[in-house]
Amino acid sequence: MQSINYSALIKEHNLSNLLKLGNFGIEKENLRTDLTGNLALTDFPIEFGNKLNNPYITVDFSESQIEMITPTFQKLEEAYNFLQNLNDIVTTTLKNEYLWPQSIPCILPDETLIPIAKFDGEYGIEVAKYRKKLAEKYGKKLQLLSGIHFNFSFSEDLLKSLYSKANTELSFIEFKNEFYLKTTRNFFKTGWLIIYLLGASSTIHKTYRKECTNLMNPLGDDLFYFENAVSFRNGRCGYKNKDEFFVSHNSLNNYISDLENLVEKGILNGAREYYSPIRLKSKDPKNILNSLKTDGVHYLEIRSIDINPFNPNGIELLDLKFIHMLLIYFALKEEDTFSEEDYDRYLKNQELIANEGRNSNLNLICCKNTQRKITTYTLELIEEIKNLFESLNILGEEEIKILDFQKKKVKNPENLYVNKLINEVKNKGFIEFNLEMAKKHLKVSQNRSFALKGYEDLELSTQILLKEAIKRGVKFELIDREENFLYLNKENNQQYVKQATKTSLDSYITVLIMENKVVTKKVLSQKGICVPSGNNYSKEIDAINDFYKYKEKEIVIKPKSTNFGLGISIFKNSFTKAEYNEAISLAFKEDNSILIEEFIKGKEYRFFVIGDEVVGILHRVPANIVGNGVDTIRELVKIKNLSPLRGKGYKTPLEKIGLGDLESLFLSNQGKDFDYIPKEKEVVYLRENSNISTGGDSIDYTDNILPIYKNIAVQAAKAANATICGVDMMIQDLNNKNPEGNYSIIEINFNPAIHIHCYPYIGKDRKIGAKLLDALGY
Amino acid sequence: MQSINYSALIKEHNLSNLLKLGNFGIEKENLRTDLTGNLALTDFPIEFGNKLNNPYITVDFSESQIEMITPTFQKLEEAYNFLQNLNDIVTTTLKNEYLWPQSIPCILPDETLIPIAKFDGEYGIEVAKYRKKLAEKYGKKLQLLSGIHFNFSFSEDLLKSLYSKANTELSFIEFKNEFYLKTTRNFFKTGWLIIYLLGASSTIHKTYRKECTNLMNPLGDDLFYFENAVSFRNGRCGYKNKDEFFVSHNSLNNYISDLENLVEKGILNGAREYYSPIRLKSKDPKNILNSLKTDGVHYLEIRSIDINPFNPNGIELLDLKFIHMLLIYFALKEEDTFSEEDYDRYLKNQELIANEGRNSNLNLICCKNTQRKITTYTLELIEEIKNLFESLNILGEEEIKILDFQKKKVKNPENLYVNKLINEVKNKGFIEFNLEMAKKHLKVSQNRSFALKGYEDLELSTQILLKEAIKRGVKFELIDREENFLYLNKENNQQYVKQATKTSLDSYITVLIMENKVVTKKVLSQKGICVPSGNNYSKEIDAINDFYKYKEKEIVIKPKSTNFGLGISIFKNSFTKAEYNEAISLAFKEDNSILIEEFIKGKEYRFFVIGDEVVGILHRVPANIVGNGVDTIRELVKIKNLSPLRGKGYKTPLEKIGLGDLESLFLSNQGKDFDYIPKEKEVVYLRENSNISTGGDSIDYTDNILPIYKNIAVQAAKAANATICGVDMMIQDLNNKNPEGNYSIIEINFNPAIHIHCYPYIGKDRKIGAKLLDALGY
Repeated sequence: MQSINYSALIKEHNLSNLLKLGNFGIEKENLRTDLTGNLALTDFPIEFGNKLNNPYITVDFSESQIEMITPTFQKLEEAYNFLQNLNDIVTTTLKNEYLWPQSIPCILPDETLIPIAKFDGEYGIEVAKYRKKLAEKYGKKLQLLSGIHFNFSFSEDLLKSLYSKANTELSFIEFKNEFYLKTTRNFFKTGWLIIYLLGASSTIHKTYRKECTNLMNPLGDDLFYFENAVSFRNGRCGYKNKDEFFVSHNSLNNYISDLENLVEKGILNGAREYYSPIRLKSKDPKNILNSLKTDGVHYLEIRSIDINPFNPNGIELLDLKFIHMLLIYFALKEEDTFSEEDYDRYLKNQELIANEGRNSNLNLICCKNTQRKITTYTLELIEEIKNLFESLNILGEEEIKILDFQKKKVKNPENLYVNKLINEVKNKGFIEFNLEMAKKHLKVSQNRSFALKGYEDLELSTQILLKEAIKRGVKFELIDREENFLYLNKENNQQYVKQATKTSLDSYITVLIMENKVVTKKVLSQKGICVPSGNNYSKEIDAINDFYKYKEKEIVIKPKSTNFGLGISIFKNSFTKAEYNEAISLAFKEDNSILIEEFIKGKEYRFFVIGDEVVGILHRVPANIVGNGVDTIRELVKIKNLSPLRGKGYKTPLEKIGLGDLESLFLSNQGKDFDYIPKEKEVVYLRENSNISTGGDSIDYTDNILPIYKNIAVQAAKAANATICGVDMMIQDLNNKNPEGNYSIIEINFNPAIHIHCYPYIGKDRKIGAKLLDALGY
Repeated sequence: MQSINYSALIKEHNLSNLLKLGNFGIEKENLRTDLTGNLALTDFPIEFGNKLNNPYITVDFSESQIEMITPTFQKLEEAYNFLQNLNDIVTTTLKNEYLWPQSIPCILPDETLIPIAKFDGEYGIEVAKYRKKLAEKYGKKLQLLSGIHFNFSFSEDLLKSLYSKANTELSFIEFKNEFYLKTTRNFFKTGWLIIYLLGASSTIHKTYRKECTNLMNPLGDDLFYFENAVSFRNGRCGYKNKDEFFVSHNSLNNYISDLENLVEKGILNGAREYYSPIRLKSKDPKNILNSLKTDGVHYLEIRSIDINPFNPNGIELLDLKFIHMLLIYFALKEEDTFSEEDYDRYLKNQELIANEGRNSNLNLICCKNTQRKITTYTLELIEEIKNLFESLNILGEEEIKILDFQKKKVKNPENLYVNKLINEVKNKGFIEFNLEMAKKHLKVSQNRSFALKGYEDLELSTQILLKEAIKRGVKFELIDREENFLYLNKENNQQYVKQATKTSLDSYITVLIMENKVVTKKVLSQKGICVPSGNNYSKEIDAINDFYKYKEKEIVIKPKSTNFGLGISIFKNSFTKAEYNEAISLAFKEDNSILIEEFIKGKEYRFFVIGDEVVGILHRVPANIVGNGVDTIRELVKIKNLSPLRGKGYKTPLEKIGLGDLESLFLSNQGKDFDYIPKEKEVVYLRENSNISTGGDSIDYTDNILPIYKNIAVQAAKAANATICGVDMMIQDLNNKNPEGNYSIIEINFNPAIHIHCYPYIGKDRKIGAKLLDALGY
């Protein structure tokens, strides 16, 4: 078979841009530990649902070994962001436990006490059986070595374009298989770069396998290590097959038949037991070899990546980007032969690096069996990658930065993660250092509680819902990102959701009822629920003639659509016919329809109703500051705005208080300005309106409202047949158990904000995202 | 009991405006006949549903006697309009039958063959039993005399205002009862005016009761009459109680106890058998006397009105308005005594008028037993009414017109309906004249088929739905008229409907899916339904980079939100990269998001889907005319615009074609102008767009589309989980049974117009209103 010069094809047909595209996914395993660094023997947290059905957060070999899996993204950054979200969600959900931040296990109990992952159902039994076999064959402790897998496929557009230009007699699938096999063969040759540059597993705890520790040097009281090892996990005592065998990578057919033979001979329990540093992945993960036969190679899985304990996400983005560049290089680099001896030679290089890589004078077997010093060889390869990218016209600033980042590690070995790690362990102790990192990472996750990385362009309510969806393993798709339009899918429950609360749970007419204040009032009063009494007028004369109806009451006269309070008159005391007529005329200047309503006393509360439950109650207070007798209003606003909850443009739960014209005007009406120094505990309001969007405070009242008012809010929702809504209720006296005359419902909102109930200025997180997903049946 | 001077109170407290307010309802009975004037022996039409539950259209004594009942309105005009709608609906729903246009029956079969009304269920049995008793007591034929009842109550505001000013010790209900009883007593005195001025039953057919015809003079071969009778129905042989008895109207208690006695003695079968020309009506029609005891008089029912055969609605609005004025007069006119003798005297006056009123020299017994000539007396009373209204400051142009209308009848007896009727009967024959009127009235109803009188401000789609609701007896309320927001209610099925198709049947998210073209496409293609392939871009560079995807295809480049076709480029043949980039740049000038889609061939069809059914398919053609070789475009447009289906402002099924700038420009692009004379059969288009709103033609294709495409439309609706929607489908070849590549769905509409399918330019009425009510469960 004549090999194809892909680089030439790409240059000739101008396909370089497609070369950098692809599909990216990341998997990461971490052990759970208790607060002192012992393996956690608790069950997988129920917050993540059924681990068999959660595509994002599950377990690997052990019940104590959490596995995080990102979906496939078309940008590496997106996959990395998602990994960060998974880390944040898992870390902050664990109760009194840490995520162990490195590949080498924590303090382990006796082998028999290590819990194998528990699964329910028929498939669960099968999965558990396989794990039991592994435990018997390799020992449970070996299975606890954790790492990161990087999943990658080239863009289908690239492969199709190359295929159409390659003038080959192969089918497209055969062509694609050959492309991936070539990448894989080159990975075997120099994929050790990943172990060398990213390796971060060296010292192990004395509770690890005796068979290993016996071979190693002690370090202090409780540790052992191989002096020059870069990656214990990839080395002689690491995670590899029990037997040595050869698997051909010359063609997919040979690869498959070699694996079939190994399984038949009982050397492997199945194709998935082949622990190669790079795997050819099939479309159907449950029928690997058959699926490879029919659909070919679906993507590649890079498995030799150690967890970086210094990074809260377990890996640097620049390192992932380097692996991506490496894969492009492997796909295009010209090949020589790849015999069984070559394969052995390459595997030996890899193990040599893992075992001895900290020795900068280490010699590797290079091309044609010559020896080359590890540092020289690494720098040469980096240069070769650089040249390739340059020749393809895709060497940008980003790529130069990625390669320089790796060069620095080679030129100054202090920068290698393994060396930094050993220094820390020597200084602080293995357990102590890892616990320190775990705590630090937890703090980082806690501090970014409300944001969902990579989704900051979405409304906060949607981010909260997505975070909860990820937590319980609901797959999602942003079908119209600008519109916050989601598709959710789990176990045949498919839902579309817009802006978090617009769902299939409410009917269209329900929304139209809520949208129309006149209709809402009729619907509510039909059910005996109090609303401001009054009437709607579209003719001035009709309103004027109805004077006799209102003349002894407290009333509000306002345009049907209120707009910044224009055209509103409030009569709290007696008024004349002339005043009444004047107010009507004013209101009609703003709209061609007006309302005359009884004036409602009390404060307004937002009841968030889902089905039969009030899940949150909030009272909003206009933008304000509390004096300390020292600072000016200007200063006090600045101090209040420092809170991480306050931002600009609805990306945070609260908005910064402004110091603009409207605030200035409102202060001057009180005879104050920004330089006024309020007295100790003096509350100064900067706005009349209580909107959160203009700096208002949100105050959680969920536990402070009598049940009877919650029930009224639920009945109001039911009157409009609403499942999800925000009921705005005026209440005069919160302690009055008799609602009659003490409340009135102003309106019902069909798109109530979630975030105000989750991150109030004062009060608890009411976890509305979780309640919404419950209601949607997830 | 001291009588209250209401007029003085009204003047003193300025309550005149309230005096004219009230609540109005009309009931009318008509016999159904076959095409030759024989009583129809068919069942009540199924289109009107269960006659026990239809509040608008039901039957009276006989299965062949349709009764129409308007709801209560606050304006008499509204009740009258509703009566017109009921007439239109009933008349046009009958198949090969007419509505007999007068009070006197048509050709009757033998007594035994006259069908008593059939009712289902337990209540039905009771109702039928009562009718059987009446048949035995009065004979069936008497029960077939038909008439009009006018239901009226004064405004509650008036009564409450009067009560609060009256300084009385009565309760409000007692006060109200006394007010209505006074009105009733005065009605007994001079209510004969109604018989005199509106009477229109004189000659009767020979098939009527022998007991009567034996008393009468023959007229021609088949008729009998009392020579001077104005209203046979109110006269000696008319519809009145079998026995003579006295019922006191001095107080409600006496009234009730008199009726209780009559029932106890077996003289009456129940309070409802008291055939007074004016009835005191109770709130609960099933427990008349008890209900009167607890809630008092609810309203008055005037029962002495004959059907006016000359008016398609059976009565002139001016006559109804006169009765309203009369009732105000009766309420306010000062009284003298009202003894049993007075009562007899007044009833005699009434019968005298009915029997002899055509004699202009007839003397009536007036005040204090003096005699007065009928015409003089009538004119005096009219003058008295005028003076009263004038003194109350409520004599407007309208009132003068109403009184003058009656005066003309008195001054020239030719104008009395009864005289006009006798002339016609003499000239044409009784049966012939009535059939002629019935046909004429049917034609009138047919000609206003699409409009609902009094609801012309509503969208045509809503009018169609309401017409269907009335037909099947679904009660409705316009809860926000400007928004076309309806409340429908029948037998515990309560529905809110906005703009005819926005209902509880669709979920909110379904509507949001349909509203968003990008989401719609994703949802449809997920289910394997063809949509224009393509992509959405929010960055110009991304669109430019995707050139390779489109370069060999036919494509459309357009802004995401299309606006009058601006920024749209269509490439049907090959195009260059430069042209492509230019088109992208143009599209981005119109929106910050653009679509690049494959170009779809074929014509567009609107599929109206309800549930599993395509209920209508329509193709729209841009505004056009067809030449005749003689007329100019200007002339041809004028001719086409003459159709009653074409109007302005969406009040008619089609819009008039314009002759404006856009049409002129479009013609000039074809080298034509408004003065161009198209050749015989030459089709000239005046618009590029096919909207009905700009004069386009709607062409019904429901029966011309292969079932496979209807199924695709239903599947498309199901993909979005829609119950009611309009699917816009492009189809290339209507005869191609293989849809693959032959269709594409452009969009799904959540608020599809109904009327275009009911009144197409070419094609059948697809009765979408009925299908919608079916879907809503009515």
